[in-house]
Amino acid sequence: MRARRALRDVGEWGLLKWLYDELGKRFGDREDVAIGIGDDTAVLNIGAAKQIAITTDAIVEGVHFERAYATPYDLGWKALAVNLSDMAAMFSKPAAAFVSLALPCDIAVSWVHQFYHGMIELATNFGVAIVGGDTSSSEKGIFISVSVVGWCEGKLPRRSNAKPGDLIIVTGTLGDSAIGLLALQRFGRKAVMRSKPLRWLATRHLRPVPRVREGMTVLSTGLCECAIDLSDGLVSDLERVAEMSDVRICLSLESLPISQQAISASKLLNCSPIEMALYGGEDYELAMFVPAEHARHVCNAVESTCNVRCSIVGSAEAGKPGVYGINEHGRLIKLVGGYEHFKS
Amino acid sequence: MRARRALRDVGEWGLLKWLYDELGKRFGDREDVAIGIGDDTAVLNIGAAKQIAITTDAIVEGVHFERAYATPYDLGWKALAVNLSDMAAMFSKPAAAFVSLALPCDIAVSWVHQFYHGMIELATNFGVAIVGGDTSSSEKGIFISVSVVGWCEGKLPRRSNAKPGDLIIVTGTLGDSAIGLLALQRFGRKAVMRSKPLRWLATRHLRPVPRVREGMTVLSTGLCECAIDLSDGLVSDLERVAEMSDVRICLSLESLPISQQAISASKLLNCSPIEMALYGGEDYELAMFVPAEHARHVCNAVESTCNVRCSIVGSAEAGKPGVYGINEHGRLIKLVGGYEHFKS
Repeated sequence: MRARRALRDVGEWGLLKWLYDELGKRFGDREDVAIGIGDDTAVLNIGAAKQIAITTDAIVEGVHFERAYATPYDLGWKALAVNLSDMAAMFSKPAAAFVSLALPCDIAVSWVHQFYHGMIELATNFGVAIVGGDTSSSEKGIFISVSVVGWCEGKLPRRSNAKPGDLIIVTGTLGDSAIGLLALQRFGRKAVMRSKPLRWLATRHLRPVPRVREGMTVLSTGLCECAIDLSDGLVSDLERVAEMSDVRICLSLESLPISQQAISASKLLNCSPIEMALYGGEDYELAMFVPAEHARHVCNAVESTCNVRCSIVGSAEAGKPGVYGINEHGRLIKLVGGYEHFKS
Repeated sequence: MRARRALRDVGEWGLLKWLYDELGKRFGDREDVAIGIGDDTAVLNIGAAKQIAITTDAIVEGVHFERAYATPYDLGWKALAVNLSDMAAMFSKPAAAFVSLALPCDIAVSWVHQFYHGMIELATNFGVAIVGGDTSSSEKGIFISVSVVGWCEGKLPRRSNAKPGDLIIVTGTLGDSAIGLLALQRFGRKAVMRSKPLRWLATRHLRPVPRVREGMTVLSTGLCECAIDLSDGLVSDLERVAEMSDVRICLSLESLPISQQAISASKLLNCSPIEMALYGGEDYELAMFVPAEHARHVCNAVESTCNVRCSIVGSAEAGKPGVYGINEHGRLIKLVGGYEHFKS
């Protein structure tokens, strides 16, 4: 007799593989579906030059956040930001957002107002209208799911399009968010906000700025066919690209972009900034795969247009899917993804 | 000093009024937003003859369902159905669905498979593709949020468009879902499923069939400018129309469509079928406001095309917003909405 398997036995990725297969075979052939399940956003054909991109992403109390360190303003901002980040990874321009909110009855009305004010600030910054939603009570904890609709056109990136020989470009710096979270958990919000570098790291965690303009700038170069946003952690996210593109990914550990703030805080917190960059997650930066000969050009385009640092952190190669790190001695080490829902 | 107000003090409707105002004034003037917050779906202009309608709706364990009586197959069906019902109320054709799911780690993998199979069955029945989503762990309970994108064109109904003199048409029968739920809670799923009439009522609760074809048929008549789907209960839902349209609504209590199964089960369960029809909720039927001279024509169109009963249950009148019932003696009674999130 086969034992009853629970989600913790197969993990999120085990579940998603089943889901991609099941939904792909049933709904993959429709003319109105340009990109179905498995990418950062779905894309629908609307019978015009443009297409629409749609994504949905949730944040859950006790899993993604705690009220002890995240204000309602932060949560409103972040719940939208993680969705705009998915739009960024599809090089799309977000237009409208929909909020599904389940809240315990004892939440203060002012909490909800602050939540929406945080979301409205980010929405306004990115030209997004919040136009719908659903509000429900919840017996236990806060659940926030946001969906975003946007416009896209041209050659859109796919997770399955990485090619051997591509270099991997990452925007911004990695590990800040995880180190910021660690500081919030260790020292509490009040103490963190009194220190300038810790506040910067915590803000990277609490109010990530989605790389929408960066994605659209890369689209305009026409040189990138594979991108993903970094939500679960560099290694976990790249494992998905490796599997879906059937490539081996090699990261140069020396090239990982790490902020000064992360380096100094990691001493205080006694953690490795490289490990936080590899496994920390929630940086909401973009990783993009670009043919080697064009990589420098794409970096320059983003750096000059968006004023954000770009780093070449590794390459895709022919080989068994997986993610490897090359250390300073040239040794290859197999890396295995960190966070996975249900398993952790 | 003003006391701290919690959601239970203002209720869902108190929160929504603030939200409609706040989001309406910030995002109401955009050219790409044809219908913003406050209706069953939002509608975006896409620069073509058609528009897109988008809606999101959540169901939460302990609030909307209990695992004791709802199978995962039921929940997958229902989580999509409640969204297709919103599409129906906007006379729109649903095209694609997105699922945001938060699940405890100890849920069986087969539970998730059954959940999706239930959703896939309904999606396939209505030509909807499930093309995206998000899966997350949850510390406490199951949370399911679904978003649906669809197409719409022509004169779309608004909650604010009811006019004095309109008659109110309701599809199907009312109160079945609430009585079915009561039976499930009282007798348990097994016993209910053994009785043909109780099974029919329980199925009305667990697997509602959204009135999409009915909505599109009414659209084709061009005679209805105000519609809403009945999710919270006839009186609660009509209170919103009354408030947004600034009309008084009078219901003829004798005319409420009540099924034979509801009448016989209500004796068994010692409840009033009229009260269940007025306040029960979750029927997912449509209520449509149509000028008196066209009401019979609209009923006939839906009955002949969709083979579903239509009933004229009341009218909109000039007067202070509110919902009234007229009993068999012609006496007018003020009715006050039943279920409201946070207050109950």
